[in-house]
Amino acid sequence: MATASERPLHLNLFIFGCGHHKAAWRHPGSPAERVGDITYFEELARTAERGCLDAVFFADGHAAGDVAGGPWWFLEPLTALSAMSRATDRVGLVSTVSSTFYTPFHAARLLASLDHVSGGRIGWNVVTSMFDTEARNHGYEHMPPHQERYERAEEFVEAVLGLWDSWSDRALRYDRDGVFADPELVRPIDHRGRYFQVDGPLNVPRPVQGHPVLFQAGSSEQGRTLAARRAEAIYSVAYDLPSAQDYYRDVKSRIHRVGRDPRSVAIMPGLVTYVGSTEEEARAKQRDLDELLPTEESLQQLGLFTEQDCTGWELDAPVPDLPPLEEFTGPKGRYGTILRIIESERPTVRQLLGRLAAGGGHCTMVGTPEQIADRITEWHTSGGADGFNLMPPSLPGGIEDFVDHVVPVLQRRGLFRREYQADTLRGHLGLERPASPH
Amino acid sequence: MATASERPLHLNLFIFGCGHHKAAWRHPGSPAERVGDITYFEELARTAERGCLDAVFFADGHAAGDVAGGPWWFLEPLTALSAMSRATDRVGLVSTVSSTFYTPFHAARLLASLDHVSGGRIGWNVVTSMFDTEARNHGYEHMPPHQERYERAEEFVEAVLGLWDSWSDRALRYDRDGVFADPELVRPIDHRGRYFQVDGPLNVPRPVQGHPVLFQAGSSEQGRTLAARRAEAIYSVAYDLPSAQDYYRDVKSRIHRVGRDPRSVAIMPGLVTYVGSTEEEARAKQRDLDELLPTEESLQQLGLFTEQDCTGWELDAPVPDLPPLEEFTGPKGRYGTILRIIESERPTVRQLLGRLAAGGGHCTMVGTPEQIADRITEWHTSGGADGFNLMPPSLPGGIEDFVDHVVPVLQRRGLFRREYQADTLRGHLGLERPASPH
Repeated sequence: MATASERPLHLNLFIFGCGHHKAAWRHPGSPAERVGDITYFEELARTAERGCLDAVFFADGHAAGDVAGGPWWFLEPLTALSAMSRATDRVGLVSTVSSTFYTPFHAARLLASLDHVSGGRIGWNVVTSMFDTEARNHGYEHMPPHQERYERAEEFVEAVLGLWDSWSDRALRYDRDGVFADPELVRPIDHRGRYFQVDGPLNVPRPVQGHPVLFQAGSSEQGRTLAARRAEAIYSVAYDLPSAQDYYRDVKSRIHRVGRDPRSVAIMPGLVTYVGSTEEEARAKQRDLDELLPTEESLQQLGLFTEQDCTGWELDAPVPDLPPLEEFTGPKGRYGTILRIIESERPTVRQLLGRLAAGGGHCTMVGTPEQIADRITEWHTSGGADGFNLMPPSLPGGIEDFVDHVVPVLQRRGLFRREYQADTLRGHLGLERPASPH
Repeated sequence: MATASERPLHLNLFIFGCGHHKAAWRHPGSPAERVGDITYFEELARTAERGCLDAVFFADGHAAGDVAGGPWWFLEPLTALSAMSRATDRVGLVSTVSSTFYTPFHAARLLASLDHVSGGRIGWNVVTSMFDTEARNHGYEHMPPHQERYERAEEFVEAVLGLWDSWSDRALRYDRDGVFADPELVRPIDHRGRYFQVDGPLNVPRPVQGHPVLFQAGSSEQGRTLAARRAEAIYSVAYDLPSAQDYYRDVKSRIHRVGRDPRSVAIMPGLVTYVGSTEEEARAKQRDLDELLPTEESLQQLGLFTEQDCTGWELDAPVPDLPPLEEFTGPKGRYGTILRIIESERPTVRQLLGRLAAGGGHCTMVGTPEQIADRITEWHTSGGADGFNLMPPSLPGGIEDFVDHVVPVLQRRGLFRREYQADTLRGHLGLERPASPH
């Protein structure tokens, strides 16, 4: 069995509102009133740090979201992470920043500034964004095509890395009788590309980590190519171990083919966990959340996903037979997930709604700390994952359960760190600090 | 004499690096090594709060700056202010955000998010930016013309205000059996303008203050027009009381002409202070900083400003006669300031260099706490200012001097608050919270 020293396990807490289950906010004890309260996020970050997790992770979007129950919102991640960095000492802080809506200079600067504020704990999850509702908030009529977004993202990352390197590590002198910074060691980048023209230098010195850690979450062909070329950690979607192994094999070999060390890039699928002291208690936690879903609305949405009239379906009966994937005319990704859940889990209608409401196509583990640790170990040792992006269905309880009960089991097995060995996110992930160019 | 209850005095701390004197970092005891250390800025904010100041204030720029001694840098203000808000409870937090380089959606979202994080203490200093070096970091070849920048700024502010109002104050319901937010009270803005197309709604609910407080610093004709229409507080430049009174009269009457209450908009000129327990001690503090200026470089720069060969000028002799303003062919603004300083202060060459190196054309007061309080009172009671944007030549000492010695005098005279009367920046400035639209 792999031990922490051989190939360490990595764990992030993916923070989302009251949890990743869409009905989590409906629980009477949920922190719904606190989704704009920075102290709530500071507490979550401290819980992650108590569990020695690698990082907390924020997704992002540029349009008002929607949960079962009207418009949803969240604090802007970069401003939230700055405050959270001051409430913690070691845990990494990863923010999604869109390469479609920012300029490279803004992104490089905001992330570099945060890396200085946090003492080297920032990660950047590069996304190209997806929705026309977002595009129309930033002056586009609709999203640029997929291909163009990824070409732009490639060039965006190149410009950002250039800006981070525009100050040499040795530029700052503070020489009271001479120079504050050596102008020879602060250089323009003169980026002249297809999408961006950026003179540089940045107005922030080289980040503490050299470069904040690059996360990527691509699953498309172009997303995998970008991840192979640039990502230092990957957030992926894997419904079960075989599909995780397929993705893992494919992306690791792509990384190898571009001349990088595949072992240096942690692949971390999303993971939804319901933890109980007994399996029954864990299932009860899941059921309690599933029962909070507004039935009519959820069945209507399922109708859209499946092109069926689901409004009359009995909630506690097995899901009726659905046509095979080939006959489905809508978007096949989600429909394929639904078919897989039905085939492997034989859920009731309510259970299917609950699975779709909590992490959708992501792996879901329900059980005791030992059972969940067993499955995590299996994924980790059989080429399925280098770690996980934890997506607790409810917060803060879901991450407290994991940190207080699953993490200690992983630690006893030698699979997960008992204390931080490094001060930076790059250090937690075992990544080298990129050398300063000039 | 006006008392605090009649027409309160307002004071901001304008934070810049090691202070507003360009040579401040050269002092052996300066915090030069800490200009990227968030704890330094947290300490400055706490000092401002100890003095019951209205706010701390950040300028901003999108290109690496320059001080006497090579490239300069600073933390990105929005990320820095988030951390600073968590180290303080009451003091306002004002950031400059450029209407030329951001989209309205980014600006509205970042500032709204910060207003939630800080509990309603955010101000936005609207600027259009100036320098081609900044433009070339964001994909422009050069800055758009002045007129276009201001047209864009007008529309930018309109879109941002619309986005802040896109969530009604009553939108959030948290009704576990019903809706999280009422979709009828979260509305698109469908802004269709000359420069911006923004659908909305924002993905952040209405800020705590309704709108973060709008600061503006326009001195040009278009800048004054924008300030009159939109500003809720104004940062201005006034070399002496007569020029302050001219500006004050002009802008207050413009505010009146557009149908707003001129008393509600505080005009706050920049103010450089050297405070000593005796006048001589204050002058020694000024001299100590001036003597840190690198002579050759400063004389060369003065040569550019005056179109003279200054390299042979004797530092401790009076400034030689200069040609009148009409004969000067370069940019007249700064040259006019130089002529005024020479005429009114009869400085030595070194003193002139020092004045230009610390706040340039801003009012400078040198003396005991009582002397400075006298002049502040004079400006405040004779139609020169509603308050000041304090620009200490050196930090942190300059603001500690002011808070510990000048503020108590102003408080004893009933001119300045002894404790905060409000929790929000809007409250400190006596501004009403804008009503929620739908």
